[in-house]
Amino acid sequence: MSWNTFGRTLRFTTWGESHGPAIGAVVDGCPPGIALSESDIQPFLDARKPGQNKFTTQRQEPDAVRILSGVFESKTTGTPISLLIENTDQRSKDYSEIAKSYRPGHADYAYDAKYGFRDYRGGGRSSARETAMRVAAGAVARLVIPEVSIVAYVAEIGGDRIDPANFDREEIARNPFWCPDAQAALRWERLVDEARKAGSSLGAVVECVADGVPAGWGAPVYAKLDSDLAAGMMSINAVKGVEIGDGFEAARLTGEQNADPMRPSLNDGGNDGPRFEANHAGGIAGGISTGQPVTCRVAFKPTSSILTPVASVTRDGEATEVRTKGRHDPCVGIRGTPVVEAMMALVLADHKLLHRAQCWQG
Amino acid sequence: MSWNTFGRTLRFTTWGESHGPAIGAVVDGCPPGIALSESDIQPFLDARKPGQNKFTTQRQEPDAVRILSGVFESKTTGTPISLLIENTDQRSKDYSEIAKSYRPGHADYAYDAKYGFRDYRGGGRSSARETAMRVAAGAVARLVIPEVSIVAYVAEIGGDRIDPANFDREEIARNPFWCPDAQAALRWERLVDEARKAGSSLGAVVECVADGVPAGWGAPVYAKLDSDLAAGMMSINAVKGVEIGDGFEAARLTGEQNADPMRPSLNDGGNDGPRFEANHAGGIAGGISTGQPVTCRVAFKPTSSILTPVASVTRDGEATEVRTKGRHDPCVGIRGTPVVEAMMALVLADHKLLHRAQCWQG
Amino acid sequence: MSWNTFGRTLRFTTWGESHGPAIGAVVDGCPPGIALSESDIQPFLDARKPGQNKFTTQRQEPDAVRILSGVFESKTTGTPISLLIENTDQRSKDYSEIAKSYRPGHADYAYDAKYGFRDYRGGGRSSARETAMRVAAGAVARLVIPEVSIVAYVAEIGGDRIDPANFDREEIARNPFWCPDAQAALRWERLVDEARKAGSSLGAVVECVADGVPAGWGAPVYAKLDSDLAAGMMSINAVKGVEIGDGFEAARLTGEQNADPMRPSLNDGGNDGPRFEANHAGGIAGGISTGQPVTCRVAFKPTSSILTPVASVTRDGEATEVRTKGRHDPCVGIRGTPVVEAMMALVLADHKLLHRAQCWQG
Amino acid sequence: MSWNTFGRTLRFTTWGESHGPAIGAVVDGCPPGIALSESDIQPFLDARKPGQNKFTTQRQEPDAVRILSGVFESKTTGTPISLLIENTDQRSKDYSEIAKSYRPGHADYAYDAKYGFRDYRGGGRSSARETAMRVAAGAVARLVIPEVSIVAYVAEIGGDRIDPANFDREEIARNPFWCPDAQAALRWERLVDEARKAGSSLGAVVECVADGVPAGWGAPVYAKLDSDLAAGMMSINAVKGVEIGDGFEAARLTGEQNADPMRPSLNDGGNDGPRFEANHAGGIAGGISTGQPVTCRVAFKPTSSILTPVASVTRDGEATEVRTKGRHDPCVGIRGTPVVEAMMALVLADHKLLHRAQCWQG
Repeated sequence: MSWNTFGRTLRFTTWGESHGPAIGAVVDGCPPGIALSESDIQPFLDARKPGQNKFTTQRQEPDAVRILSGVFESKTTGTPISLLIENTDQRSKDYSEIAKSYRPGHADYAYDAKYGFRDYRGGGRSSARETAMRVAAGAVARLVIPEVSIVAYVAEIGGDRIDPANFDREEIARNPFWCPDAQAALRWERLVDEARKAGSSLGAVVECVADGVPAGWGAPVYAKLDSDLAAGMMSINAVKGVEIGDGFEAARLTGEQNADPMRPSLNDGGNDGPRFEANHAGGIAGGISTGQPVTCRVAFKPTSSILTPVASVTRDGEATEVRTKGRHDPCVGIRGTPVVEAMMALVLADHKLLHRAQCWQG
Repeated sequence: MSWNTFGRTLRFTTWGESHGPAIGAVVDGCPPGIALSESDIQPFLDARKPGQNKFTTQRQEPDAVRILSGVFESKTTGTPISLLIENTDQRSKDYSEIAKSYRPGHADYAYDAKYGFRDYRGGGRSSARETAMRVAAGAVARLVIPEVSIVAYVAEIGGDRIDPANFDREEIARNPFWCPDAQAALRWERLVDEARKAGSSLGAVVECVADGVPAGWGAPVYAKLDSDLAAGMMSINAVKGVEIGDGFEAARLTGEQNADPMRPSLNDGGNDGPRFEANHAGGIAGGISTGQPVTCRVAFKPTSSILTPVASVTRDGEATEVRTKGRHDPCVGIRGTPVVEAMMALVLADHKLLHRAQCWQG
Repeated sequence: MSWNTFGRTLRFTTWGESHGPAIGAVVDGCPPGIALSESDIQPFLDARKPGQNKFTTQRQEPDAVRILSGVFESKTTGTPISLLIENTDQRSKDYSEIAKSYRPGHADYAYDAKYGFRDYRGGGRSSARETAMRVAAGAVARLVIPEVSIVAYVAEIGGDRIDPANFDREEIARNPFWCPDAQAALRWERLVDEARKAGSSLGAVVECVADGVPAGWGAPVYAKLDSDLAAGMMSINAVKGVEIGDGFEAARLTGEQNADPMRPSLNDGGNDGPRFEANHAGGIAGGISTGQPVTCRVAFKPTSSILTPVASVTRDGEATEVRTKGRHDPCVGIRGTPVVEAMMALVLADHKLLHRAQCWQG
Repeated sequence: MSWNTFGRTLRFTTWGESHGPAIGAVVDGCPPGIALSESDIQPFLDARKPGQNKFTTQRQEPDAVRILSGVFESKTTGTPISLLIENTDQRSKDYSEIAKSYRPGHADYAYDAKYGFRDYRGGGRSSARETAMRVAAGAVARLVIPEVSIVAYVAEIGGDRIDPANFDREEIARNPFWCPDAQAALRWERLVDEARKAGSSLGAVVECVADGVPAGWGAPVYAKLDSDLAAGMMSINAVKGVEIGDGFEAARLTGEQNADPMRPSLNDGGNDGPRFEANHAGGIAGGISTGQPVTCRVAFKPTSSILTPVASVTRDGEATEVRTKGRHDPCVGIRGTPVVEAMMALVLADHKLLHRAQCWQG
């Protein structure tokens, strides 16, 4: 995990700026012989794509991915898979203001402080546009772990939570919020629309569940499965918190309340693992998967791009005010949902291969 | 960050099991010429050491660290620093039960599932004893970043929070809970003592603040400062959640509420960065430090070692019950506090060196 | 250095197959603020480009490089630099034979043994075409080390060596062999032409000298400057040997003969390093540069693509014979010369940044 | 491979100085369930140990290795294996001269230039003493690749080569030179003894052969098996050259001469690989093993520690002369032989695990 590369065995490197000619990813370490074509990746990109409804930014790009290497006769060869998406919607625009002033809450000032200058067009490298390549790489990772089924959904927007009693997995793809609770989705429609009209923004909490992860993935001590998930999720734009299992709620439970009792497997003849009666731990103990669903929660802040002016400074240190004009996402957590899914897939696929590397039985 | 190694430029590798002959760490990449002796490390180990009062486990070990390499004439040489602590309190004990049954909430089953067997004595490698070496390595890291001042404290035990109005940094070292609120410390004394007597356990939230971090540390996209902090903190035993700045609370704010306005620096002649009027972001934007205090919050679950029997299974898949006898921490978050500090120091020192590597002005 | 990535701080990842749509590299970790455009890279690619004379393969491609990211307003931004070259000369060709039979000396059988199948078009990923991206990345690396001047040249073809007495650095670029000895170049013209006409091939030895490397680059023990050079050079297609300084000749000298005496610097007031009276060591001691020129020698085998039939087997294990028809390089060492230069630049640039990371004075 | 760590999946980190209290290694990534005790390692250390005869340095140390972690009930657990050897022969000695003057050919000046100062006692970290830990780690690596048989031997001392016609593998362990040619061993006895008496030193070439490596280990492009071997071997003290297969000799052959013809396997029913009729390639094609013996050659320079005074400078830049008094190896290549074997084992074991990570059939 070096700078723009993530992963140990299944590694991917992303490159590209919001308003450069293209963005891309190189996925290295993918096993050979896996059927792969653009059509395995495109649907995930389409799901993340902006401009699909009024609740997300109106950037209009096809985001058509091309595979430039690593696939031969429709199968992965074991060599690096290069993925590329051309940036087609690079509006000619006046960037003089953003070039001169620091947008509060954005990376503008931090980039200047680090690098001495920055590509100010649309946030450059710090733009969430980078996450499109995670989604693309994640689509490849999914093919490495066909035994695993991953779903992410928005559990909370602007403090308004879903009701677990209403949870319906089928509902997630039916509304523009990746919301598993149809009633919450209706409430959010109003909530997000109001924020959009007001030029305001809302935070969100995304939950992600991976079913089918066998016991044994992960590694002590600094490549724990939860540690890698935390790193992966926290690296997503606008994310400020990560929880595994009960997360911060666990800190408010007693040991008795937080226990995950185990019962013998029902599988008569097999050597299957125990049945767990609860999953406070989120499917991970000691950094290694237990065979339960792996669960995590991710907090997205409200985007800092708002219509209300915020005090700021110019590059020259003069006082100014910044307000965001034009397109933006009123709730970036919505579009972050497919990214969370992708990171889950990437971490799990990496650990599946890691486990094979170290353990004979793996 | 490979398995038992953490960091990119300042890297440390830990080894050792709870009940083996010793535990140790190798710190590689430390700059040369830094004054270092055992006395720079020992106080931090003493602070973490168990058995100091009735609120932590009664394991009695001096935890005396030895520097075996990398220091010459009392200064670091730039070569690997080997740190070693002998395990002296390896009570002869009957481990037959723990060898046979899986302790729920512990890594026992996961290790067996991964490796085929496990060192069951005191948790082996999965024991929190490993964190002593993080504290030792962290003491070295602190010397790499003398410009930074780090403090961690317990902000919440069993759901009982400190009152920010009572915050007193001096108070932290005065009570056995690393609690900055003297009144909360009194309440916790009763709370934790009750849990201890009942053989129960409590979760905790630890907060950590690093002052003096200059703007510019961190790196897009997968070595973001917050991403590395999340990985480091989540790899600590019993941790289930990590927040940067406002964390999950930010997900409940609007963009206006969450804004960190910037004002021109008061420093007339200097080229100092802006003054920020708030720090919802926790001192990090786009993965790079902004010059504000870097803040994070870490959730510790209640230890799974409790007196109440919990349903479990044996290695052979038979039903059993497990209860913890003997010494244990009623609230592992307390002893986790110096570990959180150490991880903060290690991540920041690593990024200071990284920044020098990439940026001419660094 | 993971699979298709090289370097620790200045890292580059290459991707692409000989006959895929494109090849590319991602250079990560390049410092910001360096003037960079395609015209800084293209000349080096042109120098390596095949088809320039009858002594190299007749593949005709413009090899025009495009920079897709990491540069803004003509300067590096500190973010990943994506370089791409489209493959334009993908002749439609009948690959059925090469698909079926293993070319001896090529990676065909090894790839099949490893991956289960292979992209057989022009060698796929194992083709020397990959080295174009090293040359491109190397051009970026050169800009990171403006204080260093690197030159590589062919010192020997088919066992015929240059005469050091004839060494003329200006001559190197004047003949198609990168030969610093005009007389040797004349001999080689006949030698290589004969090999070409006979469908045979010749080996070569390439030497590389880097002037201006300051003392102090390199790192004990497994990131020694010579160790990294060895890794980089040995990873070039067709390379079978690497020497630093006197290399294998040093094994035949006595300690007295191999000594590099040091004299005080002539620089009166400065703290310049010693003057060395010899450079058997190739400018590296203990894995760290000494301030002398860094020198290495690289052995290229004769290409295995020859007209003479060689016994082989088919994928099905049947006996067959393989002979190479069509274009090929009679002496791949010639085109390897710019690649050797590029690897020298990449290793040195990486170590310059590494040195800055660890050493305050760096 | 970061600084003092080698390997990707099976990684080892060494630490320690020649005259510090101890030296050690941490082997991380070793698979679980492998029988391991000190007695599996000690014989290899004893073979490398100095002071065994008059042809090696007279340092007298038992070099007794201790396993401090990673083994339970006599089997590896999958967690880091900590190996430690105490330095017992730290003669109290006057180091004032070596502290003040740079030994030509040693790392003294380079270390000072890099780090600003150095541990001058016996070379500190740059001492060949570090290689003891490679031998120890290599002994662990051997257990990971029981299918492979590795032997290294000295093929040449001071320019005097063995006669392949006299090659007798059994002879290697019978003489103090690891020499497979009994007659050469007799000649070398005189040669090395003369050098020793004269306070001179001799270079050597060590060859290493690994039988039993299956086809498929290695990885394009920057983790090629030969690239990793080159890095590993070149990182050994005093090594100046590495060859795979025919190495530099291949550069003097034609394509026809250098061909390794393949014939169908004799194994009727199996899917065994082809029989090769020659092994110019050293068992590696395209960076991946072919199933033939993996062979390499390593050039050791004569040690720079000689009785003849050599011009040098002091730390203050004054002219001086340095001559080596006291114990030293007249031919360091001899003691390097077990180190070459160890590095071969470490690289192969790493690649065996890497191959499992990426390839389903692995």
